[in-house]
Amino acid sequence: MLKIETEEISLKYIYDLTFQVLTKYGCDNDNASALSEIIHDAERDGSLSHGLFRIPGYVASLQSGKVKGYAEPTIDKSMPSIISIDGNFGFTPLALKKGLPLLADAAGKFGIAIMKITNTFHFAALWPETEFLANKGLVGIACTAAKPMVAPSGAKKAFFGTNPISFAWPRTGRPPIVFDMATSRLAMGDVQIAARDGHQLPEGTGLGPNGKYSNDPKEVIKGVLLPFGGYKGSAISLMVELLSAGLTGDNFSYQAGEQDNNDGGPPKGGEIIIAISPKLVVGDNWENHTSKFLKRLKKLEGVRIPGERRHRNRMDKGLRKINKEMLEKIRKL
Amino acid sequence: MLKIETEEISLKYIYDLTFQVLTKYGCDNDNASALSEIIHDAERDGSLSHGLFRIPGYVASLQSGKVKGYAEPTIDKSMPSIISIDGNFGFTPLALKKGLPLLADAAGKFGIAIMKITNTFHFAALWPETEFLANKGLVGIACTAAKPMVAPSGAKKAFFGTNPISFAWPRTGRPPIVFDMATSRLAMGDVQIAARDGHQLPEGTGLGPNGKYSNDPKEVIKGVLLPFGGYKGSAISLMVELLSAGLTGDNFSYQAGEQDNNDGGPPKGGEIIIAISPKLVVGDNWENHTSKFLKRLKKLEGVRIPGERRHRNRMDKGLRKINKEMLEKIRKL
Repeated sequence: MLKIETEEISLKYIYDLTFQVLTKYGCDNDNASALSEIIHDAERDGSLSHGLFRIPGYVASLQSGKVKGYAEPTIDKSMPSIISIDGNFGFTPLALKKGLPLLADAAGKFGIAIMKITNTFHFAALWPETEFLANKGLVGIACTAAKPMVAPSGAKKAFFGTNPISFAWPRTGRPPIVFDMATSRLAMGDVQIAARDGHQLPEGTGLGPNGKYSNDPKEVIKGVLLPFGGYKGSAISLMVELLSAGLTGDNFSYQAGEQDNNDGGPPKGGEIIIAISPKLVVGDNWENHTSKFLKRLKKLEGVRIPGERRHRNRMDKGLRKINKEMLEKIRKL
Repeated sequence: MLKIETEEISLKYIYDLTFQVLTKYGCDNDNASALSEIIHDAERDGSLSHGLFRIPGYVASLQSGKVKGYAEPTIDKSMPSIISIDGNFGFTPLALKKGLPLLADAAGKFGIAIMKITNTFHFAALWPETEFLANKGLVGIACTAAKPMVAPSGAKKAFFGTNPISFAWPRTGRPPIVFDMATSRLAMGDVQIAARDGHQLPEGTGLGPNGKYSNDPKEVIKGVLLPFGGYKGSAISLMVELLSAGLTGDNFSYQAGEQDNNDGGPPKGGEIIIAISPKLVVGDNWENHTSKFLKRLKKLEGVRIPGERRHRNRMDKGLRKINKEMLEKIRKL
């Protein structure tokens, strides 16, 4: 294992540095601030593969002209339960910032609503969107496709994306229960970090370029990832493709791969977010019912509540240790 | 491996035998026909763990008085996007038969709708409900909790149910893409069939009563099942608990376990079904877009399309080979 040099910087500095770099490479204020919040929040929560680590990719896709830094998302609300956002070929965070409050309003009115985002480039985690909804007392489900990097169960060729799915359950006065996971055994971001830091991969992460199992992250980057949990995880990944691309009309992962200019940034695609009001579906006693269940779950020895680690990190307002080499690279941008 | 004796019977005979037995033990015509269709369809599709195999359990829970064979589900439509059905302490199929057309109507009108079923006893597969929606051109998602039989990732004690989730994607003039899976490594029905037929279990299915891994179905029946895919599958199982019990206000698996009289039939619980109209969410070109994707997926070597095996079995209108010992047992009822 390599020894990693780090530097301690504040969360405010993380935001400011990100904002500065993005503005320099063509983001307008709205886009730069939406993105800087996302990166700030990822570093705050210790969600490192979606933090500063992503900046070179964001910059590359602004430089190549693939993504518009001054994109203005437009909203179609002609169906009250369907919020449709066209991202105007920008990064997703600004579209989310504009759309999520409308989605929350619709779910709060009808009990359930759906948001379809198209023509955006998603390079962040999905928990920011599901947590936004949970913080308004709603259940949130979000998913998006990616570039083909995962072989469906039984196959040896990349076809699915790492296809993340996030789910959040609201709790009054407490952080929500929330998971956000790639439907591959590992996310490609984690494989890249393992390669950078010289770590081995867990069993079943992927195949090397020769189609054989490998635990070497450098081999798997050249080969293909595998879904988590065999054919069942593969079915979940298929569901994510169908929801994120089939239900948005935007790219399936295979199409995103064919269209992408491989500048190191995110591929173009869609996102689906579903919001549900437990208050309207269950009634006023919904929270009491579920908190009994969650208390019992927490009492089980060995159990980790999804999202808890991030929320604990979040309480720490102090400095963050950042990989020095990466930080220097970003500062030079 | 034991040699299993079988007898060949027609699908019509499967329906008639089921109807006769259920009527004898107190089901009225509506309940008996809804249940007999479900069992007929399971045997037709080769979905054996949800077919005739379940009849002794259905009968036991009618005999014990836990389930009402003459239940009359009632429907609340006061929120147009939320169909709420109270199953009146009957088996779920009649509630589904009454509610699904209303759910489909709501989704066809608003783009997305949700159905909440409470006070029922679910003992069948979930694909009948998601396929019903897909056959009306809708995406269907369904899930339900069960009795505590699965240890959450990291724990050694049963707390989650086998918590199935089903998803169906519609295709005009063709069977839908549909999966229906327990979020345990195997369903308890499959473990029971393995025990009956003398088969070993695949790795990671469960723990024996001593808390150690075991491949012996008889040990796992006394011990605890594990989620599929480690902590990620465990998160999906948690989502199913929260959707099926948290969003219905009916039993979580641990409560169902505490309340159940252990007569061998299903526990009391709720079910959530979400229906989405791709036509309204995506627009008229939705099907063309997705069928290109599905064609590419099918071309990949080694890939199986979820639901295809069942739909192939369905084409065969001929006799079905049924485990003779089980059949004799049912005939004696």
